Amino acid sequence: MGQVKNNDSFLGKAEKLKPVLKHRMLRPVGVVSFERKKADSGADEMICSGTRPIQELPHQVLGKGQKLVLDFGDHQVGYVSFTIDARGSHFDAPAYIRLKFAERPSELFDRMEDCESWISKSWIQEEFLHIDVMPQKISLPRRYAFRYLQAEVIDTSSKYGIVIDGVSVDAVSAVDMADIQLLDSGDMLLDRIDRVGAKTLMDCMQSVFEDGPKRDRRLWLGDLRLQALANYETFKNYDMVKRCLYLFAGSTFSDGRIAACLFLEPEIAADDSYLMDYALLFGAILWEYYQETGDAETLRELYPRVIQQIDLCMELFVENDLVKEQKEPLCLLDWTVELDRQAGTQGVLIYSMGYGVKLAGEMGDGETARRLVVSMERLRQTARESFWEEEKGAFVSGSSRQVSWATQVWMVLADVPGREESWKLLLHMAETGSELPMITPYMYHYYVEALLHCGMKDEAVNVIRNYWGGMVNEGADTFWELYNPANPDESPYGSVMLNSFCHAWSCTPSYLLRKL
Amino acid sequence: MGQVKNNDSFLGKAEKLKPVLKHRMLRPVGVVSFERKKADSGADEMICSGTRPIQELPHQVLGKGQKLVLDFGDHQVGYVSFTIDARGSHFDAPAYIRLKFAERPSELFDRMEDCESWISKSWIQEEFLHIDVMPQKISLPRRYAFRYLQAEVIDTSSKYGIVIDGVSVDAVSAVDMADIQLLDSGDMLLDRIDRVGAKTLMDCMQSVFEDGPKRDRRLWLGDLRLQALANYETFKNYDMVKRCLYLFAGSTFSDGRIAACLFLEPEIAADDSYLMDYALLFGAILWEYYQETGDAETLRELYPRVIQQIDLCMELFVENDLVKEQKEPLCLLDWTVELDRQAGTQGVLIYSMGYGVKLAGEMGDGETARRLVVSMERLRQTARESFWEEEKGAFVSGSSRQVSWATQVWMVLADVPGREESWKLLLHMAETGSELPMITPYMYHYYVEALLHCGMKDEAVNVIRNYWGGMVNEGADTFWELYNPANPDESPYGSVMLNSFCHAWSCTPSYLLRKL
Repeated sequence: MGQVKNNDSFLGKAEKLKPVLKHRMLRPVGVVSFERKKADSGADEMICSGTRPIQELPHQVLGKGQKLVLDFGDHQVGYVSFTIDARGSHFDAPAYIRLKFAERPSELFDRMEDCESWISKSWIQEEFLHIDVMPQKISLPRRYAFRYLQAEVIDTSSKYGIVIDGVSVDAVSAVDMADIQLLDSGDMLLDRIDRVGAKTLMDCMQSVFEDGPKRDRRLWLGDLRLQALANYETFKNYDMVKRCLYLFAGSTFSDGRIAACLFLEPEIAADDSYLMDYALLFGAILWEYYQETGDAETLRELYPRVIQQIDLCMELFVENDLVKEQKEPLCLLDWTVELDRQAGTQGVLIYSMGYGVKLAGEMGDGETARRLVVSMERLRQTARESFWEEEKGAFVSGSSRQVSWATQVWMVLADVPGREESWKLLLHMAETGSELPMITPYMYHYYVEALLHCGMKDEAVNVIRNYWGGMVNEGADTFWELYNPANPDESPYGSVMLNSFCHAWSCTPSYLLRKL
Repeated sequence: MGQVKNNDSFLGKAEKLKPVLKHRMLRPVGVVSFERKKADSGADEMICSGTRPIQELPHQVLGKGQKLVLDFGDHQVGYVSFTIDARGSHFDAPAYIRLKFAERPSELFDRMEDCESWISKSWIQEEFLHIDVMPQKISLPRRYAFRYLQAEVIDTSSKYGIVIDGVSVDAVSAVDMADIQLLDSGDMLLDRIDRVGAKTLMDCMQSVFEDGPKRDRRLWLGDLRLQALANYETFKNYDMVKRCLYLFAGSTFSDGRIAACLFLEPEIAADDSYLMDYALLFGAILWEYYQETGDAETLRELYPRVIQQIDLCMELFVENDLVKEQKEPLCLLDWTVELDRQAGTQGVLIYSMGYGVKLAGEMGDGETARRLVVSMERLRQTARESFWEEEKGAFVSGSSRQVSWATQVWMVLADVPGREESWKLLLHMAETGSELPMITPYMYHYYVEALLHCGMKDEAVNVIRNYWGGMVNEGADTFWELYNPANPDESPYGSVMLNSFCHAWSCTPSYLLRKL
């Protein structure tokens, strides 16, 4: 990209805040078998067809074509070790094995050759290993995100089989579930949702807030906002939020825009992807961090970046107080290709200006605050004029006049409609639905925020119960990147194999349930 | 197997003789392309369809599905390193690549999934690698035997491609071609055969005389005999022969029989395979070693093992001066499943008794010498009575009365027929052929020895010229485990993919051409 601008002072501060990871050595709890069956609905269903105690592992001799699946009992992020030994005659050829790491049992049945995707198959967690000498301790150098580990013997020889034993994972995170108080509401489902949310967050808290420990393992700005909120209610690792704020401010586009995501290896570098909603949310993250910590120095250093993001958006993407229509999506909002993002983007812009005003007030920067207030009002007015469609009883977006949840939610959060209109709008949407379902927990989070914004607490709890509870009922140990209850194969990537099943932007029930 | 008997004193001597390997850092000489075409004969033919200078390598950006083939210019045994870097946007996913190492171009087109074999597919030299961070230097931990290295990109991402550069092999051997004088006969084909033979031997001389550096990478007794002979005429590494003799004597079956092969890792251990011809040839190896070195201590220590092998064979496998017919082959002789080995085994037994007599004489053990001479004569007489078939003008073997080259060759080398009869027999065979062709250079070696035994030097040179020269004309950089000029897909393993194309028992022209 060649247009990255680094601020070494900021990056230096971030480097000093790099956490020392905590390590927990864990062992699998059982040897399991799964079958894949067609449910009555036509969807694939995973059936656990057998469980044996892990103590049997050293007695299970595997020959050519045989496999076994180990269950680690919960989602893990870490480094796997095991010993492999030969049984029978002396090994007279290398053992050749294939390992698959799976967050969900269905991944054990996925075949890379069937994966048609526009993103990289390299994210599929599998390894092929030759073992030339046995016994041998194997310590895999790569980090995996998984609950299940399948070992399959491609070949040994007719003279020997192999035994795998001493399997462990050196599970890593910057935080530990043991240090937090989980929700104890007496409502089993809500308590479980809280636990799964916190575990999701823990597994994503590594040297930064990763989006997902399976994929992309990077720091995304929109995800960071939600992780930070859940973190304040649970692990309270303020340094990690501060570190990530400085990282984003430390490596930007040359025009000052904050990138949607940062690369961490081999060194910190802004991605060449820009998402306007993500960049604008930098202000919300800074404000909430300051509210939690009172860290005035960070506020002072990073405040100019917040205002800069708003000003750049106004300059580059707004004309006559209206976000311009874009050929390529300028915002994420939700992870559906078909979503028209014009109105939602306008909503995020207004919403973020609100945080700009708060920050400006705290900084004593009255001039900026006044300027932003004027802009906000004009943007709101234009939104009402351009996006409201009376006969639909909803806001629409783009020249296709698309009605979507994303549009309504961001209009509400931006206070484009009044409080009562907002309340009616959300009720109306809940009754009539939309052409486009919401598919990400990221979008659902803001939907719940919009409900709470209108005082619809019961409805908010119901959404958490149905949506995140739906994943729990599907056996989730951690919350997923995408969940469309109506379509289990929902994926923006062309293949559900590449979806991440521990994804940070889905952790927010641990925040929401405590804030209700 | 549980019936290995170790002699720690012998193994200790062998350990002290372990060579320090010589290292040569070599780089590929070009980027090549091959096509596989059907020749007029119907056989597959490899066509080199392009060669580019290696200097172009750093400019070749590879994306998903693309591959390149590097040519190292000659057969190499060693450890490969390279650097891999990303080009385009910042890498946003791991690179996933597949490496294939090939001794011959045809292996680049082989697919493991097409390999139907009763031996292990794990010998196929391929690796799958994820590269999470770039640039990165990759040093592969396994040793490969190859001339060609193919790198294929399974996936990168749509945002970047990879560049592979700085490729090198740390080539290892206990010896160095630079230290020997190659044949300079003025006959280009014979000189080339000598060079390829010596390179074959060099690449098999590692911590022991390996049979083949691709497969099985172990010490086999029959191979050792031929390697030792070629070594005396070339590298003159007497310590390695001594080491291997002590290794075989140091780990035997509990009844004293010497195993056909030894495992080297994780520690020295006799294989549970026994081949009578291999065990008997221990005497020939010891005699020839003593002739070369005059090492009387080794002679004295290992002489009893030689006599023990003969006595055990007589006790276990001989009845009424005739080798008993066996359900499972007791000897290798040649690597064809269909070969009846009874007569050939009798020949090897008599032949090896001859070395026993020589060794007994040198040891002043007259009683053993006399006993062996009497046995030899009785075995010869029985062989003449049982195996000669007048109307076929040849020796036959087994109840199927099979005529084979192996049988004639070993009858001749055992002096079962007189010198003139031997001469006539070999001429007759050369005219009429046999039901079973010879397929291994191992067998061809003894055929040439039999010709020389009858003074048929011109015929011997012709065999070398046609057989080993045939491999040279097929582009061999090293000589092969198997070569049947009539069948390029000859393999006892069910798939030519698993044949070894640098195999020590084929190196003997470097001995034979110098001894003519």
